[in-house]
Amino acid sequence: MEEKLEQAYLYDFYGELLNDHQRKIYADFVFNDLSLSEIAEEEGISRQGVHDMVKRCTRTLAGYEEKLHLVRKFLSIRQKVEQIQVLAEGFQAGRDGGAQDGEGIGEIKRLSGQILEEL
Amino acid sequence: MEEKLEQAYLYDFYGELLNDHQRKIYADFVFNDLSLSEIAEEEGISRQGVHDMVKRCTRTLAGYEEKLHLVRKFLSIRQKVEQIQVLAEGFQAGRDGGAQDGEGIGEIKRLSGQILEEL
Repeated sequence: MEEKLEQAYLYDFYGELLNDHQRKIYADFVFNDLSLSEIAEEEGISRQGVHDMVKRCTRTLAGYEEKLHLVRKFLSIRQKVEQIQVLAEGFQAGRDGGAQDGEGIGEIKRLSGQILEEL
Repeated sequence: MEEKLEQAYLYDFYGELLNDHQRKIYADFVFNDLSLSEIAEEEGISRQGVHDMVKRCTRTLAGYEEKLHLVRKFLSIRQKVEQIQVLAEGFQAGRDGGAQDGEGIGEIKRLSGQILEEL
Protein backbone atom coordinates (compact mmCIF):
# COMPACT_ATOMS: atom_id res chain seq x y z
CA MET A 1 0.00 0.00 0.00
CA GLU A 2 1.21 3.50 -0.76
CA GLU A 3 2.63 5.07 2.41
CA LYS A 4 0.36 8.12 2.57
CA LEU A 5 -2.71 5.94 2.05
CA GLU A 6 -1.58 3.55 4.74
CA GLN A 7 -0.99 6.47 7.09
CA ALA A 8 -4.48 7.71 6.31
CA TYR A 9 -6.01 4.35 7.21
CA LEU A 10 -3.98 4.17 10.40
CA TYR A 11 -5.17 7.65 11.27
CA ASP A 12 -8.77 6.75 10.52
CA PHE A 13 -8.73 3.79 12.86
CA TYR A 14 -6.36 4.72 15.63
CA GLY A 15 -5.89 8.47 15.32
CA GLU A 16 -7.96 9.09 18.43
CA LEU A 17 -5.25 7.38 20.44
CA LEU A 18 -2.76 10.15 19.63
CA ASN A 19 -2.76 13.24 21.81
CA ASP A 20 -4.25 16.46 20.42
CA HIS A 21 -0.95 17.96 19.34
CA GLN A 22 0.22 14.80 17.59
CA ARG A 23 -3.14 14.32 15.97
CA LYS A 24 -3.24 17.82 14.55
CA ILE A 25 0.21 17.58 13.01
CA TYR A 26 -0.38 14.10 11.71
CA ALA A 27 -3.72 15.07 10.15
CA ASP A 28 -2.21 18.16 8.54
CA PHE A 29 0.44 16.00 6.96
CA VAL A 30 -1.63 12.96 6.00
CA PHE A 31 -5.03 14.47 5.19
CA ASN A 32 -4.56 18.13 4.54
CA ASP A 33 -1.45 17.46 2.54
CA LEU A 34 0.52 20.31 4.07
CA SER A 35 4.28 20.11 3.60
CA LEU A 36 6.62 19.59 6.55
CA SER A 37 7.75 23.21 6.20
CA GLU A 38 4.21 24.55 6.19
CA ILE A 39 3.36 22.57 9.31
CA ALA A 40 6.61 23.63 10.94
CA GLU A 41 5.79 27.27 10.38
CA GLU A 42 2.23 26.87 11.59
CA GLU A 43 3.25 25.04 14.76
CA GLY A 44 6.32 27.11 15.47
CA ILE A 45 8.62 24.10 15.53
CA SER A 46 11.44 22.98 13.24
CA ARG A 47 10.88 21.11 10.01
CA GLN A 48 12.92 18.26 11.47
CA GLY A 49 10.68 18.29 14.53
CA VAL A 50 7.60 17.82 12.37
CA HIS A 51 9.31 15.07 10.41
CA ASP A 52 10.21 13.20 13.60
CA MET A 53 6.74 13.66 15.02
CA VAL A 54 5.07 12.24 11.90
CA LYS A 55 7.47 9.32 11.92
CA ARG A 56 6.86 8.65 15.60
CA CYS A 57 3.08 8.85 15.16
CA THR A 58 3.20 6.46 12.22
CA ARG A 59 5.18 4.03 14.35
CA THR A 60 2.74 4.34 17.23
CA LEU A 61 -0.29 3.80 15.00
CA ALA A 62 1.39 0.95 13.12
CA GLY A 63 2.04 -0.63 16.51
CA TYR A 64 -1.69 -0.62 17.22
CA GLU A 65 -2.37 -2.19 13.83
CA GLU A 66 0.24 -4.85 14.47
CA LYS A 67 -1.63 -5.86 17.60
CA LEU A 68 -5.23 -5.34 16.52
CA HIS A 69 -5.23 -5.82 12.72
CA LEU A 70 -8.38 -3.74 12.42
CA VAL A 71 -7.39 -1.90 9.25
CA ARG A 72 -6.63 -5.22 7.56
CA LYS A 73 -9.90 -6.70 8.78
CA PHE A 74 -11.95 -3.71 7.68
CA LEU A 75 -10.37 -3.58 4.24
CA SER A 76 -11.11 -7.23 3.70
CA ILE A 77 -14.73 -6.74 4.76
CA ARG A 78 -15.09 -3.64 2.63
CA GLN A 79 -13.89 -5.53 -0.43
CA LYS A 80 -16.44 -8.29 0.13
CA VAL A 81 -19.30 -5.85 0.75
CA GLU A 82 -18.41 -4.05 -2.48
CA GLN A 83 -18.61 -7.40 -4.28
CA ILE A 84 -22.02 -8.04 -2.73
CA GLN A 85 -23.21 -4.66 -3.94
CA VAL A 86 -21.96 -5.34 -7.47
CA LEU A 87 -23.58 -8.77 -7.48
CA ALA A 88 -26.91 -7.37 -6.31
CA GLU A 89 -26.76 -4.70 -8.99
CA GLY A 90 -25.82 -7.25 -11.63
CA PHE A 91 -28.67 -9.45 -10.54
CA GLN A 92 -31.17 -6.62 -10.81
CA ALA A 93 -29.85 -5.62 -14.22
CA GLY A 94 -30.00 -9.24 -15.41
CA ARG A 95 -33.54 -9.68 -14.16
CA ASP A 96 -34.70 -6.48 -15.77
CA GLY A 97 -33.14 -7.76 -18.98
CA GLY A 98 -34.96 -11.06 -18.63
CA ALA A 99 -31.88 -13.07 -17.63
CA GLN A 100 -31.52 -14.89 -14.31
CA ASP A 101 -28.36 -15.57 -12.42
CA GLY A 102 -28.90 -17.75 -9.38
CA GLU A 103 -25.14 -17.98 -8.93
CA GLY A 104 -24.98 -14.32 -7.98
CA ILE A 105 -27.28 -14.90 -5.03
CA GLY A 106 -25.31 -17.96 -3.96
CA GLU A 107 -22.18 -15.85 -4.10
CA ILE A 108 -23.80 -13.16 -1.94
CA LYS A 109 -24.60 -15.83 0.64
CA ARG A 110 -21.06 -17.17 0.52
CA LEU A 111 -19.50 -13.71 0.89
CA SER A 112 -21.74 -12.70 3.77
CA GLY A 113 -20.88 -15.96 5.52
CA GLN A 114 -17.18 -15.19 5.08
CA ILE A 115 -17.63 -11.70 6.52
CA LEU A 116 -19.44 -13.05 9.56
CA GLU A 117 -16.54 -15.41 10.18
CA GLU A 118 -14.11 -12.50 10.06
CA LEU A 119 -16.16 -10.26 12.33
CA MET B 1 -25.53 -5.21 26.88
CA GLU B 2 -24.88 -7.72 29.64
CA GLU B 3 -21.62 -6.87 31.43
CA LYS B 4 -19.80 -10.15 30.81
CA LEU B 5 -20.71 -10.03 27.11
CA GLU B 6 -19.55 -6.46 26.82
CA GLN B 7 -16.29 -7.38 28.52
CA ALA B 8 -15.88 -10.23 26.07
CA TYR B 9 -16.31 -7.89 23.09
CA LEU B 10 -13.89 -5.40 24.58
CA TYR B 11 -11.41 -8.20 25.07
CA ASP B 12 -11.91 -9.43 21.51
CA PHE B 13 -11.13 -6.05 20.04
CA TYR B 14 -8.65 -4.46 22.36
CA GLY B 15 -7.36 -7.31 24.52
CA GLU B 16 -3.99 -7.27 22.77
CA LEU B 17 -3.40 -3.82 24.23
CA LEU B 18 -3.30 -5.24 27.76
CA ASN B 19 -0.04 -6.63 29.04
CA ASP B 20 0.38 -10.40 29.30
CA HIS B 21 -0.42 -10.61 32.99
CA GLN B 22 -3.54 -8.44 32.70
CA ARG B 23 -4.67 -10.31 29.62
CA LYS B 24 -4.37 -13.71 31.25
CA ILE B 25 -6.38 -12.70 34.30
CA TYR B 26 -8.96 -10.88 32.24
CA ALA B 27 -9.40 -13.80 29.86
CA ASP B 28 -9.69 -16.26 32.74
CA PHE B 29 -12.45 -14.17 34.21
CA VAL B 30 -14.29 -13.17 31.04
CA PHE B 31 -13.83 -16.19 28.78
CA ASN B 32 -12.86 -19.10 30.95
CA ASP B 33 -15.42 -18.14 33.56
CA LEU B 34 -13.12 -18.78 36.48
CA SER B 35 -14.20 -17.17 39.75
CA LEU B 36 -12.20 -14.40 41.35
CA SER B 37 -11.10 -16.86 44.05
CA GLU B 38 -9.96 -19.45 41.54
CA ILE B 39 -7.94 -16.86 39.65
CA ALA B 40 -6.54 -15.49 42.91
CA GLU B 41 -5.32 -18.93 43.91
CA GLU B 42 -3.87 -19.63 40.49
CA GLU B 43 -2.04 -16.31 40.33
CA GLY B 44 -1.00 -16.22 43.96
CA ILE B 45 -2.62 -12.86 44.58
CA SER B 46 -5.59 -11.82 46.72
CA ARG B 47 -9.17 -12.11 45.56
CA GLN B 48 -9.46 -8.36 45.96
CA GLY B 49 -6.37 -7.94 43.78
CA VAL B 50 -7.99 -9.93 41.00
CA HIS B 51 -11.22 -7.97 41.38
CA ASP B 52 -9.36 -4.67 41.09
CA MET B 53 -7.34 -5.89 38.12
CA VAL B 54 -10.46 -6.96 36.21
CA LYS B 55 -12.11 -3.66 36.99
CA ARG B 56 -9.05 -1.71 35.89
CA CYS B 57 -8.75 -3.71 32.66
CA THR B 58 -12.42 -3.17 31.86
CA ARG B 59 -11.92 0.54 32.36
CA THR B 60 -8.83 0.56 30.13
CA LEU B 61 -10.56 -1.37 27.36
CA ALA B 62 -13.73 0.69 27.66
CA GLY B 63 -11.53 3.75 27.27
CA TYR B 64 -10.32 2.44 23.91
CA GLU B 65 -13.89 1.80 22.84
CA GLU B 66 -14.90 5.28 23.88
CA LYS B 67 -12.27 6.67 21.55
CA LEU B 68 -12.43 4.21 18.66
CA HIS B 69 -16.02 2.84 18.72
CA LEU B 70 -14.89 -0.28 16.90
CA VAL B 71 -17.04 -2.73 18.84
CA ARG B 72 -20.11 -0.60 18.12
CA LYS B 73 -19.17 -0.31 14.46
CA PHE B 74 -18.52 -4.03 14.08
CA LEU B 75 -21.75 -5.02 15.78
CA SER B 76 -23.71 -2.72 13.49
CA ILE B 77 -22.00 -4.19 10.44
CA ARG B 78 -22.48 -7.73 11.66
CA GLN B 79 -26.20 -7.14 12.07
CA LYS B 80 -26.51 -5.83 8.51
CA VAL B 81 -24.47 -8.67 7.04
CA GLU B 82 -26.67 -11.16 8.86
CA GLN B 83 -29.69 -9.46 7.30
CA ILE B 84 -28.06 -9.73 3.87
CA GLN B 85 -27.50 -13.42 4.42
CA VAL B 86 -31.12 -13.96 5.46
CA LEU B 87 -32.36 -11.99 2.46
CA ALA B 88 -30.19 -13.99 0.06
CA GLU B 89 -31.45 -17.23 1.58
CA GLY B 90 -35.03 -16.01 1.43
CA PHE B 91 -34.58 -15.04 -2.18
CA GLN B 92 -33.23 -18.45 -3.08
CA ALA B 93 -36.04 -20.21 -1.25
CA GLY B 94 -38.63 -17.97 -2.93
CA ARG B 95 -37.17 -18.54 -6.34
CA ASP B 96 -37.03 -22.27 -5.83
CA GLY B 97 -40.69 -22.08 -4.83
CA GLY B 98 -41.51 -20.11 -7.99
CA ALA B 99 -41.96 -16.78 -6.21
CA GLN B 100 -39.83 -13.72 -6.94
CA ASP B 101 -38.96 -10.94 -4.58
CA GLY B 102 -37.11 -8.11 -6.23
CA GLU B 103 -37.40 -6.12 -3.03
CA GLY B 104 -35.01 -8.49 -1.30
CA ILE B 105 -32.27 -7.69 -3.79
CA GLY B 106 -32.94 -3.97 -3.50
CA GLU B 107 -32.65 -4.33 0.26
CA ILE B 108 -29.31 -6.15 -0.11
CA LYS B 109 -28.05 -3.24 -2.20
CA ARG B 110 -29.27 -0.72 0.35
CA LEU B 111 -27.69 -2.57 3.27
CA SER B 112 -24.35 -3.02 1.53
CA GLY B 113 -24.35 0.68 0.71
CA GLN B 114 -24.96 1.48 4.39
CA ILE B 115 -22.12 -0.78 5.48
CA LEU B 116 -19.72 0.87 3.05
CA GLU B 117 -20.62 4.24 4.51
CA GLU B 118 -19.86 2.96 8.00
CA LEU B 119 -16.56 1.36 7.05
